[in-house]
Amino acid sequence: MEFSSKLLENAVYEMSQLPGIGKRTALRLVLHLLKQPNERTVNLSSALLNLKDSIKFCKNCHNISDVVLCEICANPKRDRTLVCVVEDIRDVMALENTGQYKGLYHVLDGKISPMEGIGPQDLNIHSLVDKAKQGEIKELIFALSSTMEGDTTNFYIYKQLEGLDIKTSTIARGIAVGDELEYADEITLGRSILNRIPFEGSLKAN
Amino acid sequence: MEFSSKLLENAVYEMSQLPGIGKRTALRLVLHLLKQPNERTVNLSSALLNLKDSIKFCKNCHNISDVVLCEICANPKRDRTLVCVVEDIRDVMALENTGQYKGLYHVLDGKISPMEGIGPQDLNIHSLVDKAKQGEIKELIFALSSTMEGDTTNFYIYKQLEGLDIKTSTIARGIAVGDELEYADEITLGRSILNRIPFEGSLKAN
Repeated sequence: MEFSSKLLENAVYEMSQLPGIGKRTALRLVLHLLKQPNERTVNLSSALLNLKDSIKFCKNCHNISDVVLCEICANPKRDRTLVCVVEDIRDVMALENTGQYKGLYHVLDGKISPMEGIGPQDLNIHSLVDKAKQGEIKELIFALSSTMEGDTTNFYIYKQLEGLDIKTSTIARGIAVGDELEYADEITLGRSILNRIPFEGSLKAN
Repeated sequence: MEFSSKLLENAVYEMSQLPGIGKRTALRLVLHLLKQPNERTVNLSSALLNLKDSIKFCKNCHNISDVVLCEICANPKRDRTLVCVVEDIRDVMALENTGQYKGLYHVLDGKISPMEGIGPQDLNIHSLVDKAKQGEIKELIFALSSTMEGDTTNFYIYKQLEGLDIKTSTIARGIAVGDELEYADEITLGRSILNRIPFEGSLKAN
């Protein structure tokens, strides 16, 4: 792509460094900003810079938070003996949206991935094990994605907890509610039949 | 979407104001920036602000340019009697990429669109008519998109040029090179048979 202006080229380059944004999309976004009032660009830039400068993480669950303890951890109504281990804050938001979970979270901020050079020390695993050793947690729910990396991470944490009196569980994998059986992939269908639940249990969930 | 942090919510909101970027994508982009080194965000912000602050347009063709006359207008090898009228600078880049066009451009910066409240006075039409009246231009090529708005704009400019000794043309509409006839839409196929060109002409183009 040949640009008529270095400033434009630079803005498009920086924009195209975002994931899933190619050069063409970047150009479209930049030209859109150019057509908008100045404050649009100023607001976007300052919002990003402010976030990056002042970002804080909850000292208990590592969720992004403006205060020392996030709303969830600070809420006395939440069950402190139940901790759900998730990959990033988007998972917290997704689970909170269901309104079904009343425990706390622990955000790992990624998965163990030798391919990407991410080891256990790069994640918030140490603080999780520390918390577990303090004895308040009764159950740990693994809600990582069911990929090789997710399974590795689950297993690593599981091994770290050995000897502690903590129940561990993973979220149920199975056919999505409303999905047709015939279109489900074989692994999911297989797991859903192996991990079948009592019929009365399925009634309770609704 | 419930956010655990006002700063995060604000950044996601500003990002989601970009066209084609929903709240979920905005969150993904913002979280990506958070994981990157600080300079990534600083570079993006300053590139956008710099562009917005220091943007200049070529005084002849209204293309974005860091100097008074853009590279194309300043190039003595380009044919100054031939001017291609386009909607925005992306069209200039697309046409330049073909390497087939040796004339100059005139960037309107949009199309006449009563629906969006864009009238002729909002576009760079006045300067085009002025240029035309100076007598240097021999042919004006309309390369706007073939929508209602594009056609209206073409016609409006055409009427403004009445009485001037300027040839006008539009870019050829037809079946794209490599496309199958059976999948072409009827209007395009209809136009391509009506506006057929001598066989020798099609050989020359290759």
